[in-house]
Parts: sequence; C-alpha cells; structure tokens
Amino acid sequence: MAGSVFGKNITVSTWGESHGKALGCVIDGFPAGLELTEEDIQKFLDRRKPGTSGATTSRKEDDLVEILSGVFDGRTTGTPISMMVKNTSQKSSDYKEIASYYRPGHADYGFDMKYGFRDYRGGGRSSGRETIGRVAAGAICSKLLGKMGIEVIAYTKSIGDIEIDPGNTDYAARLTTPTAMPDIEADKKAMELIQKSREKNDSLGGVIECRIKGVPAGIGEPVFDKLDARLSQAVMSIGAVKAIEIGDGCQVSRYYGSENNDAFEAVGSKITKKTNHSGGILGGMSDGSEIILRAYIKPTPSIASTQETINQDGENITINIKGRHDPVVVPRAVVVVESMCAITLLDLMISNISSRADSIISFYKKS
Amino acid sequence: MAGSVFGKNITVSTWGESHGKALGCVIDGFPAGLELTEEDIQKFLDRRKPGTSGATTSRKEDDLVEILSGVFDGRTTGTPISMMVKNTSQKSSDYKEIASYYRPGHADYGFDMKYGFRDYRGGGRSSGRETIGRVAAGAICSKLLGKMGIEVIAYTKSIGDIEIDPGNTDYAARLTTPTAMPDIEADKKAMELIQKSREKNDSLGGVIECRIKGVPAGIGEPVFDKLDARLSQAVMSIGAVKAIEIGDGCQVSRYYGSENNDAFEAVGSKITKKTNHSGGILGGMSDGSEIILRAYIKPTPSIASTQETINQDGENITINIKGRHDPVVVPRAVVVVESMCAITLLDLMISNISSRADSIISFYKKS
Amino acid sequence: MAGSVFGKNITVSTWGESHGKALGCVIDGFPAGLELTEEDIQKFLDRRKPGTSGATTSRKEDDLVEILSGVFDGRTTGTPISMMVKNTSQKSSDYKEIASYYRPGHADYGFDMKYGFRDYRGGGRSSGRETIGRVAAGAICSKLLGKMGIEVIAYTKSIGDIEIDPGNTDYAARLTTPTAMPDIEADKKAMELIQKSREKNDSLGGVIECRIKGVPAGIGEPVFDKLDARLSQAVMSIGAVKAIEIGDGCQVSRYYGSENNDAFEAVGSKITKKTNHSGGILGGMSDGSEIILRAYIKPTPSIASTQETINQDGENITINIKGRHDPVVVPRAVVVVESMCAITLLDLMISNISSRADSIISFYKKS
Amino acid sequence: MAGSVFGKNITVSTWGESHGKALGCVIDGFPAGLELTEEDIQKFLDRRKPGTSGATTSRKEDDLVEILSGVFDGRTTGTPISMMVKNTSQKSSDYKEIASYYRPGHADYGFDMKYGFRDYRGGGRSSGRETIGRVAAGAICSKLLGKMGIEVIAYTKSIGDIEIDPGNTDYAARLTTPTAMPDIEADKKAMELIQKSREKNDSLGGVIECRIKGVPAGIGEPVFDKLDARLSQAVMSIGAVKAIEIGDGCQVSRYYGSENNDAFEAVGSKITKKTNHSGGILGGMSDGSEIILRAYIKPTPSIASTQETINQDGENITINIKGRHDPVVVPRAVVVVESMCAITLLDLMISNISSRADSIISFYKKS
Repeated sequence: MAGSVFGKNITVSTWGESHGKALGCVIDGFPAGLELTEEDIQKFLDRRKPGTSGATTSRKEDDLVEILSGVFDGRTTGTPISMMVKNTSQKSSDYKEIASYYRPGHADYGFDMKYGFRDYRGGGRSSGRETIGRVAAGAICSKLLGKMGIEVIAYTKSIGDIEIDPGNTDYAARLTTPTAMPDIEADKKAMELIQKSREKNDSLGGVIECRIKGVPAGIGEPVFDKLDARLSQAVMSIGAVKAIEIGDGCQVSRYYGSENNDAFEAVGSKITKKTNHSGGILGGMSDGSEIILRAYIKPTPSIASTQETINQDGENITINIKGRHDPVVVPRAVVVVESMCAITLLDLMISNISSRADSIISFYKKS
Repeated sequence: MAGSVFGKNITVSTWGESHGKALGCVIDGFPAGLELTEEDIQKFLDRRKPGTSGATTSRKEDDLVEILSGVFDGRTTGTPISMMVKNTSQKSSDYKEIASYYRPGHADYGFDMKYGFRDYRGGGRSSGRETIGRVAAGAICSKLLGKMGIEVIAYTKSIGDIEIDPGNTDYAARLTTPTAMPDIEADKKAMELIQKSREKNDSLGGVIECRIKGVPAGIGEPVFDKLDARLSQAVMSIGAVKAIEIGDGCQVSRYYGSENNDAFEAVGSKITKKTNHSGGILGGMSDGSEIILRAYIKPTPSIASTQETINQDGENITINIKGRHDPVVVPRAVVVVESMCAITLLDLMISNISSRADSIISFYKKS
Repeated sequence: MAGSVFGKNITVSTWGESHGKALGCVIDGFPAGLELTEEDIQKFLDRRKPGTSGATTSRKEDDLVEILSGVFDGRTTGTPISMMVKNTSQKSSDYKEIASYYRPGHADYGFDMKYGFRDYRGGGRSSGRETIGRVAAGAICSKLLGKMGIEVIAYTKSIGDIEIDPGNTDYAARLTTPTAMPDIEADKKAMELIQKSREKNDSLGGVIECRIKGVPAGIGEPVFDKLDARLSQAVMSIGAVKAIEIGDGCQVSRYYGSENNDAFEAVGSKITKKTNHSGGILGGMSDGSEIILRAYIKPTPSIASTQETINQDGENITINIKGRHDPVVVPRAVVVVESMCAITLLDLMISNISSRADSIISFYKKS
Repeated sequence: MAGSVFGKNITVSTWGESHGKALGCVIDGFPAGLELTEEDIQKFLDRRKPGTSGATTSRKEDDLVEILSGVFDGRTTGTPISMMVKNTSQKSSDYKEIASYYRPGHADYGFDMKYGFRDYRGGGRSSGRETIGRVAAGAICSKLLGKMGIEVIAYTKSIGDIEIDPGNTDYAARLTTPTAMPDIEADKKAMELIQKSREKNDSLGGVIECRIKGVPAGIGEPVFDKLDARLSQAVMSIGAVKAIEIGDGCQVSRYYGSENNDAFEAVGSKITKKTNHSGGILGGMSDGSEIILRAYIKPTPSIASTQETINQDGENITINIKGRHDPVVVPRAVVVVESMCAITLLDLMISNISSRADSIISFYKKS
C-alpha cells in the first residue's frame, strides 16, 4: 500500500532516505492563489534543524528547501507543489556496521522482515529526516490557516520529569529555547537534565502539547474521519510517538460524567463552554473551543551505551551504536507535530465546505 | 468528505441512525472463500447488546443481523458483504425535547454548526448504535485473522478507579462478566461502583485494553500508514475515546532510552524480545511481539442530574436528560475496540502481501 | 481492492447480487439539506425496470426502493444515505445449469479464475441488476445538479444500424419510447429491428449519447482526474460498454488542427465557442459548452441460439442459454449512463469548490 | 481534489510545469527488490523525447532522469521512488504573448476559470511535458510486468488517414520509426503527410493501439474498478485523447450477439477463445486473451495559422501562435499510452492477489 501519502483533499506525499540524494514532498490539491516563498518554508524547517544547541545532535544539516513546481509569480497555482532538500552532511561510513544487526527500539528488524533488505544508512526511510517533507507541507498549510485566523502552536511540555509551569508560559519563547519549551525556567532545568543524561550515554523522552486556536465549530467528519481520529493518525505516524490524548485525555477515564461534561454557555451572542475538558472536540467535530492534544515521545533509541541484540544471522550479540544522535528528539519534533496538525486540520476544513447542499448551490450561483 | 468509509484494501462503510429504519455496513474488498454465517456475526453483536445487566442501559435491543449480499453457499464470494440490523425498540418520543438544545458532552452542537440541522432522535448518527456496523465487520475480519492464528482480545482494564489485577486475569471471562473485565473480583467491585454512580445520577468512564497475539513482524506501512497510526485512527474514531497508547504509552516520556529499549534475543531459531515496552510495534511495523494498546473512555455524557447548557436560540438554560442511558459505555465498547483493531490489522496485512516484488512474481507464476 | 466504491468527495458503494436477498447502495459524503423522497429515486429506477415493452426482458421486477438512512424530516442529513431494493421475482432454478459452464461474452470465467467460485444465479454480481445502486445514487446527484441549473440527458442514439435523426429529436420523448430514443420514428424502426433479431434468437447492441447542459467552465482536475478521464471510468464501468468518446471522439484522429480547434468567441459579455468539436471538455476541464459523450454498447451476450463453449472441467461443449433475457440492453442502460455521469460530475464540482485559497478563506470568514 | 495522484496499491504522483525548474514523479507502494537503474527509465523517456525527427517539434530536450530515492544497492527498497528531470531548454520568452489570451483547443481558459490565473509558460501543467512523470513510472511498472511474462506494446496505428497494414507489422520497428508505426511503409507515407500538413501550418491526429500479452484471467475488480474502466481513465487522462475503445470497440454496437460472442475453447489443457472481439476483457476482468485497446488522439491544437479567439478581457481577437510545436503528438504519445496501461495493469494485478482468503492465509503460513 502507498503508506507515504497523507490526506484526502490535500495529499502530502513524502519521499527520501536519510542518506540518499535528497528528501522532499509533493503536495497535491493545494488551492491556488496563496502567496508563497521558500522563506515561508525555510522558517519551519529551521525549527527542526539539528546542531543548534546541546539539546540536539552535533551533526550539521542546513536543509535548504527548493520549490520545484506549483508556484508561479510568487503564488501557488493549484498544481502540485514539489519541494526538495538535498542531503549534504551525511557520512554513510558511520552506519556501515549497523547493516548487519538490528538496533533495539528501531525499525531495522521490521524493515528486513517486510522488504527482505533495507537501506541501512542512517535509518534510511525511518530516519527522522523523513519529517522534512512533513514540515515543508506543514509550513504551507499553516500559512493558509493563518489567513483564516487559525493558529497552530506546539511546544515541549516536558522532558523526562521536567515539566513546564502552565502559569509561566510564553508561546513565542518556544521558537528560541533549545528545548522548544515556552517556559524559560523549565527550559534551563531540562537542559541540565539532558546534559546529565548525555554524560551517562543515555537518552530522554518527553511530551509535546499542541493548541489550535480559532477553529470554528463543526470541523471533522462524523464516524471514521473524526477530527480527533485523523489527528491521532497524523501525530502517531511521527516516529517516536507512543501515545496521544485529546483534552483531558487519559484522565477522563477516572472522571464522573458530571465532572467531565463541559457546560455550553452563551455570553452575549457568543457561544462558548465553561470548561474545556473535551479539548475542543466533541463527537469528532470541533466544538468552537481551543483544540488541545498531547503526544508522548519515547527516548531516542540510539544510545551510546552497550546493548544486547541479535544480528542478521540470528545470533545474540552486544553492540555500541556510534554516530551523533539526539539526546532527546522532543525539541526537534515540536514543529513536526505542529505541521501534522496543520495538514490534518486544513484537509478537514476543506471537506467541511461541502457539508451543506446550500453552500454548493450558492458557490456555483455566484461564480 | 466521505467520513463513513474506513480502510484501503478492505473498506467498511457504515450507515444508519439510532432511530432510523435500520443500521448496517457494507464491506468491500473482502476476500472470497471464507465460510461465514449470520451466527458468526451475531456472536459479536451480542457482546455490545444492552439490557443484559446493571452495567448497561435497560433498553432492550435484539439487534439481529441479516446478511444481504456477498455470501453464497455459506462462503464469502469476494463481492460486497452487506449486513443490516433493523431498529425495533426505539422510542423517538423520549428524544423530542432534546431537539431544541445542545447536550453537554455530545455532538449535537457540532452537527448543527456543520449541517444546519440534525436527526436528533437518540443521537442520530452519533449514537453508539452506529458501532453495530463496525462490530459486524469486525466479526468477519476476526474470523479470517483466526485462520492465520491471530487472536484479537479486548477487555475492560478499569472502570473509574477500579482496575483489574493483571496477575488474576482469565481472558475468556471477559465474555461473561457484566463489565467485560477478565478478572471476576475486579468485576464485582466495578459493578458496585457503577451502582453507586447510578444512584447519584452520574456516569463513569474507564480503560479498554487490547492484545493482539500472533502477528508476524513487518505489518504496517512506514510513514503515514504505520500500524500504530492506523490503529490510533481506528480506535480514536470510536465515540467516547479520548486517548490511545501503544505499549507503555504515556509512561515512556519519562523513561531513559536504556530502560525503554527492548533487547532482541534469539532463543534457538526463534527471534523474540526480552521486554515489550514497545507494545509490539517499532517504526510503525509489528515487531513480532504481542501488540498491546489502551483506549481511554470518557464517562457517558447523558446523565440524569441537572446540567447547564444553551438552546438553539442561544439562550442559557438548565436541562435534565431523560431516557435510559448506559451508566458507563466501557463494557459495550470492548467489542467495538476489538473490531476496529481486527479490521485495521487485516487491512494492513493485505497491504503487506505485496511488499516484495518476488512475492508478486511468484504468485502469478504459480497461479 | 474495494472495487465497488466510486467517487472521492461523494462515494457510492453498491452491493448485491441478482438473486440475493436485495441490492442497494450507500452514498457517503452527500451534502445535507436537499429535499429528498423515495419518489425522486423511484422515478429513475422505473426507467431501468424491465418488462415494460418488447424492447426488454419479459421478467417483471418492481424494484421498489426503500431509504434506510440519511434522510430526516424529508431532507438529507449529510450522513450516509442507504437505499435498498428487495429481490422478489428471481427464479434461481432458471440458472442452475449455468453453474457448470462459462457463457460466452459473460464474466463467468473471470469470476471463477479470480475468486475460485461464483454466485452463478442470474449473473450474480455481474448482473445488470447491480446497476440499481448506481441509478438510485444517480437520481439523488441529478436532483442536486438540477438545483444548480445543470441537466444530464442521456438517450439511445442507435440500436443496430437504426440511428436517430439529430434534426428530429425531442429529449422528453426518451422517457416514454420503449427504446429510450428521443426520435419517435427511429424508435419505431428500432422496435421492428429488435423484433426481427428476437425471432432469430439473436441480440443487438447500440449507442447511448449523453448531453450535459449548464456546466460552468473549470470543472475537472488537471492530470489524472480530468473530467473526461473520470467520466470514461464511470461509463466504461457499466457492464456492456466497449468504447467511449467525448465530443467528436474517434473522428478527431482524422481531422486537421485547423478543423478541430473550436474558436472562442465573446458575444456581449458571454463567452462561448463557435463550434463544439471538443464536446465541452478541454485539457480535462469543462470549457463552458455542452458536454457530449457517447457509450458504445455490445449486444446482449445471453442469446437463445446454440453456442460453443467449455465447462468447468475444461471440456468443449455446446449450450443453449435459457431464461428471459433482454434482446438489447441499450434502452435500460440509458438511465445508468445518465446516473454515472451525474455522480461523476457532482463529485468533481465539489472538488472544484476548493480550487482557490480565496474561496476557502471567504467561506470561513462568512460562516 | 488531488488530481495528480493515480493508482491505489501503487500510487503515482506527477508534478511539474513545462517551464518550471523540473518535472518528476513519486511512486509510492512499489514493491521491494526489483533491480532498477536510471538507464531502465531513460530508455522509456527517450521514446517521448522531441527533436529526433521531422515528426516532432524541433525543440531539443535531453530529459535526463535522476532517481532521488527508493533505490539502494541497485534495487527498489519498497519506499517511495522519487524521480526528477530538470528543465533546461525552455525559452519562456516564446510564451509571454499567450499569457493574455486563450488558445483554441487548449486548457488555458479552463485554468483561468478554475484557479483565477495560470502558469502560462509553455502550457504550464497542461504541457505534454507533464507526461515525463508518467513515462518514468511506466518504465518501472513495465519492468516488473516483464518479470511475470507480460508485455505491453503500444504503437501508432494511424496518422490522419494513413493506417498501418496489420498484416505487415513488426512491433520492434515502432521503437525506431519516426512515427512509432510498426509498419515501415505506412511510416513513410505518414511522414509525407506530416510534411505536407506542416507546410500548410496545420497539424494532424491519429490512433494509438496497445496490446498487452500474457495477462492471466481474472485481473480487474468487478463493478467500478473494472480493468477496462481503469484503463479508460488512465488513457483518457492523457492530454489529447478524445476516445478509447476496447477490442472491437465502437463496432460492437452494430454487431449481433451471435457475431460478437467469443466462444471459449479448450485446446488440450489450455483454455482459449476462438475469436477476441472482447479485446481480452469480459465483465471488467481479463479473460486470458490478448488485451487490445485504442486511443484516438486529436490534432495538435497549437498551429501556426491564424485563429480566432478571445483575450482575457473578453475581446474577440485573432492570433498566430509562435513557438516550435509538434505537427502531430501521436508518435511521442505512444510511450505514454504504454506507460499508463502498465501502471494500471500492475496496480490491478496487485489488488487481485488478495481476492481469495486462501491466498492470504497461505502467504502468512509460509512466511
């Protein structure tokens, strides 16, 4: 099956391996007339760029994006937008050894069982570099959402046991702190934890939270294409995510109905809710409140300490993974979560336009 | 968008409203030659039937399934399998009142914003009765998976704060306990909690766990159609689910890499893992271990106690929802989770068959 | 693969076999708020009903449609519309013999090779009765198109060598003539030809033409989902169709460019074309002119005269097909062509609504 | 809608405009393990390269393909295959004038109506250069089909009124004759006709025939994804095609059933048909005979002689289109038809593998 294509109205196809010639994506079905430059995309890509601080690998990857099609005279044309980032800094020699064995916590074994062999260089298709295509697409979708007053804001909520203080956040700060936390004090503590973990040749996980502001009620398709269902696929499809929750998420299993129900309330002509346990989604559709979700990220599986595993001949061995790896992937994954949420939301907002016969009739009457 | 169609190789389309003439599903792309009777499906449907104990609504719904097409001489023919359950016990009069306002925790408001009006009787399309089609499809997919030695087993893990004891489980018991717990003692305690909650005109949530045994390594498509990503969409698309986790799920965010990585191990010619924090999925593909996931379910939003909300004219009002509602939906949702997992897994197992050029070539050489 | 699902925004799933319990369809993604009754659909189904004249089989099939879901208070709700027609008049005994051999010109052999066995009664899934689901869906799509001033008109253009006179047509007449020709004189001649063919235990083919009036320019998606490409799939997927052409079709292969190009012309503020060789489609998009296509239909393969073929054991045999068969399927297929064109066009018109970023932005600004 | 994505198991996304930086495609879902080099693809691309004879435009386009992903150690890896051809020879200045008006027979008007503006340089997305992506994908699919003994052979059947002599064909010759005719004498006559047409500043159309040998019976999915229906979409989606027919095609509308039915015949253990009016497809599935289809191509709309049209302000004008255009597109379109047929067939052959439950069960038992 074609597992590298996402979306229904707007489809995003990503391609490329960690150590191949290039990586990229093709966005088909994107509407015409949006002003778009390579800078719009580069800003997003720079947020996932490594080598910028002690929170990431020391590998340098410039990851400069090139728009190859779908933009003319500075605007999208409605035709497929093809974007490419060339691979430059990859040292394949680092990875030769891993060809022969299966790294714990990695996709190596699954790839060999599925396809019979694999491009083992740097994780190949399972490398975090695959997300370059997602982020490039997310940048464009975010821009269009912005024109409708919708803001998608993801940030690091916790790394290991260091959590942000919700009363002390400044979302803009997430763009400059090395951990992508919106809380400067938590960021400092998290950086110390990362340093300690690194010294122990170990790695950390964490939680990314995403808030989407300004979404009108009614987005999402009842039943299988519920807004939360599609967001779950989108976010869970990011490499290291192991859990996703909407609103109060896991906690609701211990609530009583009387605690969990959010009362609707009219304040003047505006309809709102007194609480937002639902995280902005009811019955699979947005309810007009802020959408809130959290992705739980596992610690980087590539660690320098000795590990047990097997080789391709099925023999038990011990290994020490070499190379430069992220001590925690959370900070770099923040913009990936933001991107996947933007793509998913825009796709469903386009679906929603044809929910009523009247809208369709009046579109064609006026045009 | 067509939000009531699920799957790629096998597609399941569900249809029907709570108080319409009937509900059902069409399964397209199901392979030919599987022996199938209405009893196979009825067994599954009976597990979501209400009125069987104090853990469910007192409404009686027989929910007898009829196979309308796709089966001939006792076997599937490869053509669409259409199944239908007629609605018989619905009392629309119970619901007339709710036409005018938006119940907290329900999809009512979203439906009106999206479509301009709604079939308000009994939740209409957002009713739990929609899952009849899912369970009918799940029964058939489970049967085929069983032929390959794969067992999908969901059960209630907790209701409110009553949790099963993992050391005291008997999965078969989940088919007979009123809570669908596989632990008879926990079941009793949960029933007491339900009784208390009911007396307070309140409702409860809980957790459903699903274990899938016997899945070979390599199932799931890297990138967007990862096994965990597709399972997440499938399970999150069930009405009351607010979070989903794979393996150790949320907890991994606080693990170190050295704790979380599962060591591969060869025991004779068999490849296994020393631990299973991953829940049987690595890099979006099955790793040969048991697949484990959990769905977190919110408390039933329909409660008898007084609630604040707004009516269709945007006025603040208080309401008391009448009718017979489940004090907790978890027990009846267990077979829905099991069904959605079975459908998703089978769909991806079919995709996987064409992962290698050699398999395709040899299929056509022999046939 | 799920071959019984058609469409992207609106999906139509048909199900059912000739001699099963029932046939039907599920339409998912149809917009809310269209007034709809069973009569709207019955009118279309009656046009494919047999037994009404010497041009069809003498089998009586009432084919009464029942709407099972998706309509409330007389209007579509935006949820799946499920429709069913029960099988009543089928005599399975007529068909027992054909279980053992492969009828020339039929799908029997392909079914056995593909699935290992088949529902042989009356053609099973390959029966013309499968089109009941298509026509039911077509009726609904046509109704919505009508609200936008779009008319889809199919009719019989020829049967055998009897052709209508384009200068002598009255499209309304196609609804009452036994051949569905819009030319009463040609209809008479065609009926005589059918009578002669029937006496010789033989069958006839013919041509169906479809005109679509009122389509704005720009409908159809460049590249693979061109309007003509999607119409071709739609129409060629009808059982007996062996060729399809758009506008001047096959003839254009012998034209010079100077003959074939249609000059655009402004008449006042209205943009039109001096000729319409293109059949209303240029570059895969509607050009604002009338859309014209033709489907070429083969003669009914079930004929009473002796034929050579093989049986399931691979032995050469001769057969005489019994049962009541259409002497020509063209008249009954007219409404099927009309339906498939309506479904396809509406699906692509919905796609087109989101072609421009501005339209999306302004939809959400106003709503 | 995402109109630039084709296929279900294998999806081909093409991207790029005539005068943008590059054109290409991404093939997702292609199975792992096929040996593949850039030469395999270049051979196909060279067949659509212009400037090689008087039958094509004098523009030189080298169209060198680069594989960017999905191939490792000389074999496909199962991950997306991204391929790119850089644009080098384009002279945008030739096209500035056409920005302001709508060329007859072109997509210009539709593009402006749909998207509000267009990339007017050289036809932009509607340029024949878009087919580069299709041909690159077709080359790869053809190679895998070849491993299964299946050959897809397209050739020019006629140009204007010059037709090949079916008794005098050598399919290999189509790779070397300037017209892609497999009949050297017809080729000469056609080249003379082209020369004459060119002198009159006019253009020609023609017919492409495609034969597919070695396809087992049962390929194609009954109902909407019939083999002939999908081939029709595939071929009709090629720019200048205005009609498509299968087997005897249009002619069958005048046949009697007794003439049109192909008798099955057992010759030893081999099952065959005495005739092949059906063109190898019955009931939407391959019947084991050679598959035959024909595409009818219109004359190149860009002609040098004076034409009437309108400009963007809706004024009637006359134009003379400049630039170097193909006097007939048929020869270069032959490999595009071959490619689209190969992609479609392979996609449906993969679907067919899971038609039987037994095949699925035995795949997983053995693996």
